[in-house]
Amino acid sequence: MLRYLTSGESHGKSMLTIIDGMPAGLYIDKSIIDLELARRMLGYGRGKRMAIESDKVDILSGLRNGRTIGSPVSLLVRNVDSSIDKLPKIYEPRPGHADLSGILKYNLSDIRDVLERASARETVSRVAVGSVCKIFLAEFGITVVSHVVSIGAAVSKARNLTFEKIVSSSMKSPVMCADAGASAKMCREIDLAAKAGDTLGGVFEVLIHGVPPGLGSYAQWDRRIDALLARAVMSIQAIKGVDFGIGFGSAALRGSLVHDEIFYDKKKGFYRKSNNAGGIEGGMTTGEDIIIRAAMKPISTLRKPLSSVDIRTKKKIMAAVERSDVCAVPAAAVIGEAVSSIEIANSLIEKFGGDSVSEMRRNYDGYMAQIKRF
Amino acid sequence: MLRYLTSGESHGKSMLTIIDGMPAGLYIDKSIIDLELARRMLGYGRGKRMAIESDKVDILSGLRNGRTIGSPVSLLVRNVDSSIDKLPKIYEPRPGHADLSGILKYNLSDIRDVLERASARETVSRVAVGSVCKIFLAEFGITVVSHVVSIGAAVSKARNLTFEKIVSSSMKSPVMCADAGASAKMCREIDLAAKAGDTLGGVFEVLIHGVPPGLGSYAQWDRRIDALLARAVMSIQAIKGVDFGIGFGSAALRGSLVHDEIFYDKKKGFYRKSNNAGGIEGGMTTGEDIIIRAAMKPISTLRKPLSSVDIRTKKKIMAAVERSDVCAVPAAAVIGEAVSSIEIANSLIEKFGGDSVSEMRRNYDGYMAQIKRF
Amino acid sequence: MLRYLTSGESHGKSMLTIIDGMPAGLYIDKSIIDLELARRMLGYGRGKRMAIESDKVDILSGLRNGRTIGSPVSLLVRNVDSSIDKLPKIYEPRPGHADLSGILKYNLSDIRDVLERASARETVSRVAVGSVCKIFLAEFGITVVSHVVSIGAAVSKARNLTFEKIVSSSMKSPVMCADAGASAKMCREIDLAAKAGDTLGGVFEVLIHGVPPGLGSYAQWDRRIDALLARAVMSIQAIKGVDFGIGFGSAALRGSLVHDEIFYDKKKGFYRKSNNAGGIEGGMTTGEDIIIRAAMKPISTLRKPLSSVDIRTKKKIMAAVERSDVCAVPAAAVIGEAVSSIEIANSLIEKFGGDSVSEMRRNYDGYMAQIKRF
Amino acid sequence: MLRYLTSGESHGKSMLTIIDGMPAGLYIDKSIIDLELARRMLGYGRGKRMAIESDKVDILSGLRNGRTIGSPVSLLVRNVDSSIDKLPKIYEPRPGHADLSGILKYNLSDIRDVLERASARETVSRVAVGSVCKIFLAEFGITVVSHVVSIGAAVSKARNLTFEKIVSSSMKSPVMCADAGASAKMCREIDLAAKAGDTLGGVFEVLIHGVPPGLGSYAQWDRRIDALLARAVMSIQAIKGVDFGIGFGSAALRGSLVHDEIFYDKKKGFYRKSNNAGGIEGGMTTGEDIIIRAAMKPISTLRKPLSSVDIRTKKKIMAAVERSDVCAVPAAAVIGEAVSSIEIANSLIEKFGGDSVSEMRRNYDGYMAQIKRF
Repeated sequence: MLRYLTSGESHGKSMLTIIDGMPAGLYIDKSIIDLELARRMLGYGRGKRMAIESDKVDILSGLRNGRTIGSPVSLLVRNVDSSIDKLPKIYEPRPGHADLSGILKYNLSDIRDVLERASARETVSRVAVGSVCKIFLAEFGITVVSHVVSIGAAVSKARNLTFEKIVSSSMKSPVMCADAGASAKMCREIDLAAKAGDTLGGVFEVLIHGVPPGLGSYAQWDRRIDALLARAVMSIQAIKGVDFGIGFGSAALRGSLVHDEIFYDKKKGFYRKSNNAGGIEGGMTTGEDIIIRAAMKPISTLRKPLSSVDIRTKKKIMAAVERSDVCAVPAAAVIGEAVSSIEIANSLIEKFGGDSVSEMRRNYDGYMAQIKRF
Repeated sequence: MLRYLTSGESHGKSMLTIIDGMPAGLYIDKSIIDLELARRMLGYGRGKRMAIESDKVDILSGLRNGRTIGSPVSLLVRNVDSSIDKLPKIYEPRPGHADLSGILKYNLSDIRDVLERASARETVSRVAVGSVCKIFLAEFGITVVSHVVSIGAAVSKARNLTFEKIVSSSMKSPVMCADAGASAKMCREIDLAAKAGDTLGGVFEVLIHGVPPGLGSYAQWDRRIDALLARAVMSIQAIKGVDFGIGFGSAALRGSLVHDEIFYDKKKGFYRKSNNAGGIEGGMTTGEDIIIRAAMKPISTLRKPLSSVDIRTKKKIMAAVERSDVCAVPAAAVIGEAVSSIEIANSLIEKFGGDSVSEMRRNYDGYMAQIKRF
Repeated sequence: MLRYLTSGESHGKSMLTIIDGMPAGLYIDKSIIDLELARRMLGYGRGKRMAIESDKVDILSGLRNGRTIGSPVSLLVRNVDSSIDKLPKIYEPRPGHADLSGILKYNLSDIRDVLERASARETVSRVAVGSVCKIFLAEFGITVVSHVVSIGAAVSKARNLTFEKIVSSSMKSPVMCADAGASAKMCREIDLAAKAGDTLGGVFEVLIHGVPPGLGSYAQWDRRIDALLARAVMSIQAIKGVDFGIGFGSAALRGSLVHDEIFYDKKKGFYRKSNNAGGIEGGMTTGEDIIIRAAMKPISTLRKPLSSVDIRTKKKIMAAVERSDVCAVPAAAVIGEAVSSIEIANSLIEKFGGDSVSEMRRNYDGYMAQIKRF
Repeated sequence: MLRYLTSGESHGKSMLTIIDGMPAGLYIDKSIIDLELARRMLGYGRGKRMAIESDKVDILSGLRNGRTIGSPVSLLVRNVDSSIDKLPKIYEPRPGHADLSGILKYNLSDIRDVLERASARETVSRVAVGSVCKIFLAEFGITVVSHVVSIGAAVSKARNLTFEKIVSSSMKSPVMCADAGASAKMCREIDLAAKAGDTLGGVFEVLIHGVPPGLGSYAQWDRRIDALLARAVMSIQAIKGVDFGIGFGSAALRGSLVHDEIFYDKKKGFYRKSNNAGGIEGGMTTGEDIIIRAAMKPISTLRKPLSSVDIRTKKKIMAAVERSDVCAVPAAAVIGEAVSSIEIANSLIEKFGGDSVSEMRRNYDGYMAQIKRF
């Protein structure tokens, strides 16, 4: 079992994470983690803070000469600004944020106590964990990518893309969009929203390639891989919807147009010509690409503030304005990759057992031969 | 902590469930569970088996003279047809089902071994657990209802309905739709699909009323209430998408149109005039109604069969035809209520502690007074 | 991961259990479970109820034609006397029982509500789960036995016994003691205590043979196999102490007399000539026999009652006398086997992964070859 | 729910811990943690390294101006020697250590990879977590102390001590023994063992005062407080046995001499005159002091080395000699306090719910009034 806990506040000393259960014998290239942390900060529409912070990971435990040894891996990313104790108090809860429910729940009187942890800065930790998991998944030929499907009203027309196409196209786009025309439109949308003091959300897609069939299970509700992936992706700050394959679209179609027919080829084994299911049937992976879409609401901190209430006086007031990002959908896509990678890594460990990468690999190979022989 | 495990196969002896962690002192009216089990079987578009089975629960443990005593509650629903051992073997995996991944994963040679557990019959158990949780939630003034938003291309125009309206309108509809016109259209869609030997999915909405603010938490990713609800709803068979409030819709709008402004009134305390967030901000309940939408794909077993492969010969074959439901969206909505009720009950127990309903109620009242005083 | 929940009250309808996570392809012989349930009722010193109840398991789910198919296994044992609702109220908490803390915790007014679930009758469920796990362990050549080390002042002199010796000797003894002389003494102790209206406890030992090295882990505190076994055994009703190998004895000796030196033999691989560690070092199995000892306190319900307080009047009163067992140490040993079997099965599943016995077996063989090659 | 993960290697950069679930509003005095870390290093019989390391905690997250805010608390203790990558390889597994099973399990070739994490240095993390929990428990009037009962053959005669007596007496002893005569004997035992190049273990006792009745539960096996405490204490490195109250001693006595009779007093409520049960009946706290005894085996690294095998050549060799502690029982007692504090804190949070200390305190007071009224 792979477990992890994150910790850290937005203006605290550091973002700190412990991962328990990573098999021994995995070489962790720190620069890959740093690269993913950098990807998390990119994207047209980000404000000043993103330019200031330059996240680098410090691996505090779990490795010896660069390789995992079975012990917990801990990852630390220092915050540039760690003035948490001295930052001014906040009394105006921002609509869309954890602010109001947070102070009620924890019986606090300063909203700063809430937003410091509720902040999306926490996802630094999850991207760090996810990048370790990506390195691990690569040992089994599994790759995880993402691209932005829409920002505000601008929608990518790129559908049913190959992995290669997604990677190559979206890398060129400032908003990680695989459709060049839509990419330009998205940037314009962001400019317009910025001018209006407003913010934007959007939709991104995560694709996972090379997954063996049979991860997850229908045997018990909380072992279904789609349920686990949905929990992981929905737990990302500002995500309000998750679906798989054609997802909500499948609700409008007849069954004969939705279900992916089954074929067989001596070389490939069982395979599909379509993938409306997004790689998951009956709570298990089918071996086809896993396709996850997630909807992100617009950023909750607007320059054009919303109506709120001073928690001391209970009088109407305008909500606090703190940062100036207009859109963070590309960053959310990177985080989506990370949390999906963690879930797949965990289900892989559960299915193949083993305490070292070599042992897992042997078990994996045995299973792949078994289903080939089937 | 509330935990439960379900068991049982579609044509096994019975569907059996154990719930651990229900507080003492709750009167469980068996007829309420039976009513929910009956609701699960209703809905225009269901086939013959639904008419045959008439599920009644037998409470095997956890009660004394009708009241919980702190010990695990076990619920048994007998199957009318328990011929699992004698039913013929199946060799044609049905697209959209667990069939193919299941036999590969568990190294089985008869698809019947898979479909018996992967079947949506399993949800009998979850509806039973959910109805116990509904009785529990009622002690805290929390009610859970649902209605059908769309079936195939027929879409309800009823939006932003009051609880009362949803309950009264959807009860009159054979497809649990609160919009009478759409309800008629949905039935026609089902008739047409039935004639074509095809199936339909749709979208339903679950609403939870009376939830206190502050359930769930932003402190750790796996404690967010939206993440937990998403896991629960996505784990229902055939669900391919979940969102909250205006969900995927929020991705297309600017922030100023999405976030629910905050107001204060001496009597109500803090409140909102809109509820685009679906009652959840920062991974916590806000106190407004929780609104969950879920997309169900069309039923995977069509009378008009899809292309598949015989797992013995690897030759092309038409997929097995087993039952004749055309549409089960109303049933899925009932199941959605059930699994949502379980999650809310669990987070309530976590927040208020206590081992008896009276102790929990005292703790709950203390918290409500605290946030009123805030 | 293997999980299970038990349910059922002493005079309720039945004792019911669900096991989730048992791999597919395991043939479960119901008669083996019944045999273990019978063993649980044996032993010199048991009262009338034991003679009345004749526990037989009914497997309600999880099997098809006798074999596991990956779905949860549920086990039901009916109670002969299911008059829970009608049994008289109890107001005198018995010292040593859950009675007093139970009514305070759950805010109950009738002690019967507590003792019905706190009763050792619950262990029927655990013995049933344990016997399924024993069948599973046998697939990997792992066997679990036990014998009684002491009852009251009568102590077995049989130490460092071989498995075969323990099985053969203890089977002949009415108190499962491998030392014939001590066995006779134990029976006399029981007779004397019975005459005095008193009760007896004792010590039993569980031995697990054929365990591969490397189950459990030092990487995180809650993955240590000794910690997990201690939790399992200490959770048996009336157990007050647990140790491994020479356990408490090792605290009195110097290190040079305690630690088991390491040897190597081409055929055996690494091995030990002593086993003071009881088969566990650093929170992992060593491959030597696991040896667990547990201390059971005397039965809490005496015919010669103890001083207590009427919970209504708060006046001094003599504690309730309910049943007339004098000693249940042999039964506790059987239960000890069961719960230990569950923990080893779980750690085996975690280490070797796999969803079918054949897949697990392949992974297991690969590991055994790996450490042989080491 | 309180959860924590520890990480860190003996000669890695630091020992790092994350605690999730600590309520808001708790003032954490860093100096109290440091004091407990210092207590962990004391005790007659420790070697040079203990003198070198001077552990100080750095709280990296979870506090604002010294108070918890509901977010995870992370604790870092730096290692003075962090040369893990450069330390020489080890090929001789030490009997009694994780060495041999560890390299087999994780498929490693250098024993250093194992011992770095298996080392008792990991308990720095647990003492840090435990001291935070002690601060938390103090809010509810719960105190946790310990004393050494035996070292080798030297046994304390102090039994049934009051809390005050234990604290005052054991503080004066270089081995934390409350019996001055035995304390002197213990030091002599250590001197003799040191001269012989040998090591010693012993027995310690942890006492927890002020616990309310009703923590833990008999409802499900893994919720019993004795089972949870046994898991926690047995998970400490080198612990081979755990018992409660008179524990193993109760196995030799008749029931009438073991069970603690129940009395009532208007002021005290229900109480006992004896505490053979060690404060736990039916898997729940009784309100009397919890008494836990644990047996520690002698330290596994002897100056007088034991027979082992070179893992490369498979030839007989003498086991590696690494450090020169002779006895660490007093340190183990401090660690025992820590892990017990964590379990009690967790069960308190489960019973009383709440997200802030003030809310928990209100719930706690309500319960205490309820059982007083009973």
